[in-house]
Amino acid sequence: MATALTLHPDRLLPTGPAVRPIARRLYDSVSGLPIVSPHGHTDPAWFAGNQPFTNATELLVTPDHYLLRMLYSQGIDLERLGVARPDGSTPGTDARQAWRLFAANYHLFRGTPSRLWLDWVFSAVFGLDVRLQADTADHYFDAIGSQLATAGFLPRALFERFGIEVLATTESPLDDLRHHQALRRSGWTGRVITTFRPDPVVDPEFAGFRANLARLAELTGCDVADYTGYLDALRLRRHFFASMGATATDHGHPTAATAELGDREARALFRRVVDGPVAAQDAELFRAHMLTVMAGMSLEDGLVMQLHPGAWRNHNAALYARFGRDRGADIPQRTDYVRALKPLLDRYGNESRLTLILFTLDESTYARELAPLAGHYPALKLGPAWWFHDSPEGMRRFRRQVTETAGFYNTVGFNDDTRAFCSIPARHDAARRIDCGYLAELVAEGQLDEDEAAGIAVDLAYHLPRQAYRL
Amino acid sequence: MATALTLHPDRLLPTGPAVRPIARRLYDSVSGLPIVSPHGHTDPAWFAGNQPFTNATELLVTPDHYLLRMLYSQGIDLERLGVARPDGSTPGTDARQAWRLFAANYHLFRGTPSRLWLDWVFSAVFGLDVRLQADTADHYFDAIGSQLATAGFLPRALFERFGIEVLATTESPLDDLRHHQALRRSGWTGRVITTFRPDPVVDPEFAGFRANLARLAELTGCDVADYTGYLDALRLRRHFFASMGATATDHGHPTAATAELGDREARALFRRVVDGPVAAQDAELFRAHMLTVMAGMSLEDGLVMQLHPGAWRNHNAALYARFGRDRGADIPQRTDYVRALKPLLDRYGNESRLTLILFTLDESTYARELAPLAGHYPALKLGPAWWFHDSPEGMRRFRRQVTETAGFYNTVGFNDDTRAFCSIPARHDAARRIDCGYLAELVAEGQLDEDEAAGIAVDLAYHLPRQAYRL
Amino acid sequence: MATALTLHPDRLLPTGPAVRPIARRLYDSVSGLPIVSPHGHTDPAWFAGNQPFTNATELLVTPDHYLLRMLYSQGIDLERLGVARPDGSTPGTDARQAWRLFAANYHLFRGTPSRLWLDWVFSAVFGLDVRLQADTADHYFDAIGSQLATAGFLPRALFERFGIEVLATTESPLDDLRHHQALRRSGWTGRVITTFRPDPVVDPEFAGFRANLARLAELTGCDVADYTGYLDALRLRRHFFASMGATATDHGHPTAATAELGDREARALFRRVVDGPVAAQDAELFRAHMLTVMAGMSLEDGLVMQLHPGAWRNHNAALYARFGRDRGADIPQRTDYVRALKPLLDRYGNESRLTLILFTLDESTYARELAPLAGHYPALKLGPAWWFHDSPEGMRRFRRQVTETAGFYNTVGFNDDTRAFCSIPARHDAARRIDCGYLAELVAEGQLDEDEAAGIAVDLAYHLPRQAYRL
Repeated sequence: MATALTLHPDRLLPTGPAVRPIARRLYDSVSGLPIVSPHGHTDPAWFAGNQPFTNATELLVTPDHYLLRMLYSQGIDLERLGVARPDGSTPGTDARQAWRLFAANYHLFRGTPSRLWLDWVFSAVFGLDVRLQADTADHYFDAIGSQLATAGFLPRALFERFGIEVLATTESPLDDLRHHQALRRSGWTGRVITTFRPDPVVDPEFAGFRANLARLAELTGCDVADYTGYLDALRLRRHFFASMGATATDHGHPTAATAELGDREARALFRRVVDGPVAAQDAELFRAHMLTVMAGMSLEDGLVMQLHPGAWRNHNAALYARFGRDRGADIPQRTDYVRALKPLLDRYGNESRLTLILFTLDESTYARELAPLAGHYPALKLGPAWWFHDSPEGMRRFRRQVTETAGFYNTVGFNDDTRAFCSIPARHDAARRIDCGYLAELVAEGQLDEDEAAGIAVDLAYHLPRQAYRL
Repeated sequence: MATALTLHPDRLLPTGPAVRPIARRLYDSVSGLPIVSPHGHTDPAWFAGNQPFTNATELLVTPDHYLLRMLYSQGIDLERLGVARPDGSTPGTDARQAWRLFAANYHLFRGTPSRLWLDWVFSAVFGLDVRLQADTADHYFDAIGSQLATAGFLPRALFERFGIEVLATTESPLDDLRHHQALRRSGWTGRVITTFRPDPVVDPEFAGFRANLARLAELTGCDVADYTGYLDALRLRRHFFASMGATATDHGHPTAATAELGDREARALFRRVVDGPVAAQDAELFRAHMLTVMAGMSLEDGLVMQLHPGAWRNHNAALYARFGRDRGADIPQRTDYVRALKPLLDRYGNESRLTLILFTLDESTYARELAPLAGHYPALKLGPAWWFHDSPEGMRRFRRQVTETAGFYNTVGFNDDTRAFCSIPARHDAARRIDCGYLAELVAEGQLDEDEAAGIAVDLAYHLPRQAYRL
Repeated sequence: MATALTLHPDRLLPTGPAVRPIARRLYDSVSGLPIVSPHGHTDPAWFAGNQPFTNATELLVTPDHYLLRMLYSQGIDLERLGVARPDGSTPGTDARQAWRLFAANYHLFRGTPSRLWLDWVFSAVFGLDVRLQADTADHYFDAIGSQLATAGFLPRALFERFGIEVLATTESPLDDLRHHQALRRSGWTGRVITTFRPDPVVDPEFAGFRANLARLAELTGCDVADYTGYLDALRLRRHFFASMGATATDHGHPTAATAELGDREARALFRRVVDGPVAAQDAELFRAHMLTVMAGMSLEDGLVMQLHPGAWRNHNAALYARFGRDRGADIPQRTDYVRALKPLLDRYGNESRLTLILFTLDESTYARELAPLAGHYPALKLGPAWWFHDSPEGMRRFRRQVTETAGFYNTVGFNDDTRAFCSIPARHDAARRIDCGYLAELVAEGQLDEDEAAGIAVDLAYHLPRQAYRL
């Protein structure tokens, strides 16, 4: 039996009668602002090619590791959801069957942000007005599929409809950025920029590291077997990415360790790392050293630095062997910043011209380490609640634990950080609602005047990300 | 001067006018459900023998380490509270005097869950209508004592009055389960089952480990000096416990470390552990290895596994020497799960047929480690807020930090985990109130529809524990 | 354009209609109580000399590391704020210019407690009724400056106007306490007492440690090159401090490590530490040992012990080189208490006559370690939310994470811990409001009766600090 699907107009706003009206006023003043998305993982090919998305399963389920992990946790095999094996094969998968399986398990997402984002997509993007469950699965699959085939649902049309002012994707330094180049040539006015993510050539434990270096040499003509040539090659790729619109780099490391090695020590380490096999501590030290090197390059070329540490990638060995990366088996770990960042901060922490945006999966560091660090060092800013914590309660914890020490102006607004294109407006909307709710509580408690809160709301939604990411 | 004792009908429900009515409706729909208590520490002898409890002090104070620790922290000697020495002697104790001392210090428990549970017991079980304080101590002692002597307050009568559908106790693998056997023979229909807690024969640092192994050999006829015989003996005891109703095992380890040793390595370690003296790292490795072994046995015999790590037992050496275990001197420690559980998860994490329920005393792991792990691995579920965190704020933190990543359906409902029999309904009632409050907030914030919340409320109170513990 | 500055009469109280009236009643019953300030860093010279404060910048900005760190984080050079170099010079600084710079950046403090405290000072102390911003900077500077020159704004007059019953300062054991002696001789009835902070002669890594020992020898006539003489010297200084009113010692260590060394081991370690250079682990072990020694001395002389661990002091090496200590570059670190304190607790933890007040910068220890420890050991009490956590949300987290295990009576009320004299009443007022709000929530949720809450509110604001600090 179908149940109505409606989006509560005051969803995620505080429920207290003294607070909600304030929150509502603040939210009304920011809900229509353009979306600035300075960090994410959408595919630039979508916008370059502007081909229609295929069906509900491939658009909404298979690429979304938030969904895969939850379904898998309840014993649902990823193959039945249409997830491809590393060789690209999807044996025995039928998109409609996969969607039905998803629909029948949609209750698993109650209380999670995935439910919020998806309901928004269903209602606001596809106009669906019944709840997704087993007996509405086909209706959904058909309704979404038929709309996706129309012009109004092509990637560029959705981009414009979503009110996206700028969207950053993330690419390997070995990427030729052909889609970004095609976009530039296309004459389309949507602003899609790249981000420089050097992990494949900077992390000795990245899959194919040595082959990646060989490819780096090919792309740049540099002798990357030599440390100086290697750094030159990185500079050239950074320059190329910047020419394709990049204003930022991104670094996904297992820890936040940084180091500053002397030239001789650095060359010797690079030698060991290139020659292999690489000891775990050499790999860690090289990543650590390269973060400091990258900070130096950022001072040269002005690219903003982002550090995303703390995930144990591919924790489930068997699943990784079957399906590869990004299938929901990454698990956060305890992360130290105070000792880890000191070498980099000793060298560059007092540089106002550098912006290093820190993220964490370890919320215990918000009030203890990150807010004190960002509330002191001119080079540091705090990224928003990330990944598992990009959720209503997660965002509330972020503001409540960070603001009192770091204020609002050492934070950088919201990142959607997503591969799920259609959820981008839902995510920004949720963040704006949570931030307005937080601000409204400060007003209702007499900690801020409402005119100040209104200014901050606009800053968080729009100005801070533009400033922090130099957009 | 006596003050009225009343239980607020809406206690522990959210106070906001937009939320409380929803919470009240949800709570009304679950408040009368039977109690499923799949993990606890009541004494099966109570129900087997069905003898009257003696007095207020022995029923409510002396066995409750929550009370002892708080009173002791304020300089009150445990001997004055009637706590027995290890030799069983209770020099100079008078139950009434001890009760008066407790009553005069009852204010210490303001703001703690003990206060909530006790007030419920006083009011709902014993019909007391004045607050406990120095000048009502004798009234309490007399009123409770006289009721305990009546038929309606015998253990089985209380069990039935409390609406307990099933109650699990916890026993050593060396226990002959005579009380459980007597219960089965008695014809009483109350369902009291045991739980297999193998620590005494699996943890080389457990008091009397080698003597325990000798006893294990006696009970099973196995040659436990041999590793194969030792494993056979464990299998036999598990089988015996299952025949006495056990559906679960429970493992209380200092850490969550797991390991998987090869056969030769395991035999050599077992040899060292049995021969003694045992090095700390050998003890840790053996416990770690045995967790993985036990997971394998659970796959064989279907017993659900529970892991309770992270307590530094008997932190107060002097108190332990005087009074022995479980006197309130256990202190939680930082606990890692991500690295610790990997060996077991590598072997069995993808097994949907295994259920490993994780608990923690380190709340910083809720959102960072436990929810991501349970929200991915089919074998994992999350136990409820445990021990120090089994409290209104503790349960709220659990839901707020776990749900957004793990959802509701990777959790297992409530455990009362108590030795304090009379508090069982109070504890389940508190959990139901907190869960309904949390759900009501999701409804009021537009994150869930009320019909969904109502379904979840019943699942949390009743269906999830039955399913997770295979009851 | 000037905007009105008003202090909301219900600021920081919960906003829910069922809670606020209760909170308001509770707050009204404690708002006028005298201020007991048992721990802080004001300068006794102010009260001894009773000279007028100079201007707004020197009174409110330059000594306040909360303000300096935030302004510095946004790229504002400390020299422009009038911060002196270690040689005392303040090149190119003009107090009015510095104030203007501060005023133009006052928006950075939105959402921080500094904003709350300062607005209180502006409004309640100086009668200002417009908000501080760039275009009111001069008005502020003039209005504050002219008032500071009047009799009613002399340090003693403010002390009396603030309703301070007792104020503890903190001094080095090498301090001759001349200001405290002058105060005693002056006949002024304001109670200003000292606190014994032995770090300069107990921490081998403290700047000038060996010179400090030499000075200790001079002051006491003891042979501090000998371990026995060193301990005697410490006893003499403690005795002298106690004679100047001290009721407490304070220990600021990087960690909470304690140790108990045998006499021979202690003497050998002392020898190494005095002879230098000091290995990091020797320094840590010596501090650890001395905490246990100091606990023993506290049992002798009755001084209450305070332990403030967990700050990485002077994390910003370059800033430290330019400006010295206490400029906002201290960063908290993860802190362990359970293992760290065990040696001291094994020796003295069961002593009801000892009071050791624990503080933390690592909130993850509140519920996990500190509340269980303080809720068990007679010698332990918990200090209030400290430093970065002395804020509305920080104080709420403290109560919510501590109370359910440790109750209220293992806590010690509020510390303002400040160098910012004028903010003392604002800080105590904020703490009272937050505590009353927390209590009101317990009442509204049916966890406490209002008469109990009212009693606790007075205990927290007044009786507990007097008792815990033996004032």
